[in-house]
Amino acid sequence: METFFSFLEKRVDDCSSLLCVGLDPHILDLKEPTADSALDFCLSIVKATASYAAAFKPNAAFFEVFGAEGWTALKQVIEAIHEESNRLGSKIPIILDAKRGDIASSAEAYAKSTFENLGVDCITLSPFLGKDSIEPFIKDREKGVFLLCKTSNPGLGDVQDLTLESGDPLYIHIAKLAQTWNEKNNIGLVVGATHIDAMKRVREAAPDLWFLVPGVGTQGGDLEAAMKAGLRKDGGGMLINVSRGISRSQNPRKAAVELRDQIVNIQFQMKH
Amino acid sequence: METFFSFLEKRVDDCSSLLCVGLDPHILDLKEPTADSALDFCLSIVKATASYAAAFKPNAAFFEVFGAEGWTALKQVIEAIHEESNRLGSKIPIILDAKRGDIASSAEAYAKSTFENLGVDCITLSPFLGKDSIEPFIKDREKGVFLLCKTSNPGLGDVQDLTLESGDPLYIHIAKLAQTWNEKNNIGLVVGATHIDAMKRVREAAPDLWFLVPGVGTQGGDLEAAMKAGLRKDGGGMLINVSRGISRSQNPRKAAVELRDQIVNIQFQMKH
Repeated sequence: METFFSFLEKRVDDCSSLLCVGLDPHILDLKEPTADSALDFCLSIVKATASYAAAFKPNAAFFEVFGAEGWTALKQVIEAIHEESNRLGSKIPIILDAKRGDIASSAEAYAKSTFENLGVDCITLSPFLGKDSIEPFIKDREKGVFLLCKTSNPGLGDVQDLTLESGDPLYIHIAKLAQTWNEKNNIGLVVGATHIDAMKRVREAAPDLWFLVPGVGTQGGDLEAAMKAGLRKDGGGMLINVSRGISRSQNPRKAAVELRDQIVNIQFQMKH
Repeated sequence: METFFSFLEKRVDDCSSLLCVGLDPHILDLKEPTADSALDFCLSIVKATASYAAAFKPNAAFFEVFGAEGWTALKQVIEAIHEESNRLGSKIPIILDAKRGDIASSAEAYAKSTFENLGVDCITLSPFLGKDSIEPFIKDREKGVFLLCKTSNPGLGDVQDLTLESGDPLYIHIAKLAQTWNEKNNIGLVVGATHIDAMKRVREAAPDLWFLVPGVGTQGGDLEAAMKAGLRKDGGGMLINVSRGISRSQNPRKAAVELRDQIVNIQFQMKH
């Protein structure tokens, strides 16, 4: 039976890529500050990069900021990715970067919104409220989550780096919890490329999990160092997200191909 | 100059109430599973309870589940509360229960969505990503946030209760951070009524902060015990949220009046 990560792995094989293309229609990058312009921005990236994308990651914030029209645009972006999947004959997973985290019937409503209404395959969540806040999102093994573990922002130290009584920093505890909770092969972790030592430690604590890795490129993370620290023993397990490094380049298609090839080369070097 | 909490305190004085009326249009409570029905559900609660509400708290999840139409309904609910405020001649603060938590330009987009587009006054946020994830929401002192500290769900122990090297549980560390960060009098804490000892400890760690308190009623929290543990020395500082205890009662207006009076009585007993 398919799980979210077996589905992702199939796509990774189909396109020989660990590249996740982030869709961040930041208002400053748009021709006009409108939902229509956000839609156009995303559609052009989707069309240019679909062949090389192991996954797409639309960021809910940049749609939500346009209210109801933004949600309509988000849904249209998702449908456009489904069309590209059909054209390619290889389904591309869609990860909604929403960082939600709520409990009980609220968590269920967010899960329904994400998987049933929007029709995406995976979502980013905060682990702060504990396992019951995650459960509505992981009960269907074909749908997945990436839990925030060690992010790439300056303020992450305020909470994620706190040392526990056990000696572990909080983010390592989160990694261990996620490894334990991953009974259906549909839980991964968000681990920023900006902290290489932390990446290494998270990999030790969660040897089997997929990582969604922000922070390469504009945020200063070193791709090769991050991959050396974070790849699984089987040479996979990392989805490298790039957003502005693609959307702001003169030629998004070329940028995606180059990134895909760079990632493949590093994987190859590490195998040999 | 007004801050979010001086604005809330003015409203608390105007209506002699610490009652926050939660607007949770859960699909099972609606006549039909539609955004229109969610809107009707909320409008009738708003009309029935506005005179007794220190604040309203719409829960984003139950609107988001209806996609674009849900966001339109949410905006209409907010406008209806503004109209009630005008009618009463006393502005009622609106807290969006969204538990967002993101960084940099994404956090800014969520803040813009919340305060500029939706036009609410306050939002619930997760502290997991640290101070820079909060900053876009607190830079205007007239807008406020409640940070998740100790929630009311069974799984909270997975993360919030972890003991730090310092001996504090994580939720106490969050309370201390929030007390330090509250330079503009616009940061409060979400503290569930379901754990009285924890409430007492959070009050010790954050003597000045406002608490938003879920968990009374359907979730089993004891109102009197929670207030005794959590009220500030000045007899304020707690916003008691009730959602289904009002929406599911035969007479929401009567339920709100009774809750308001019950809260006032406990405040009075404690003063004397």
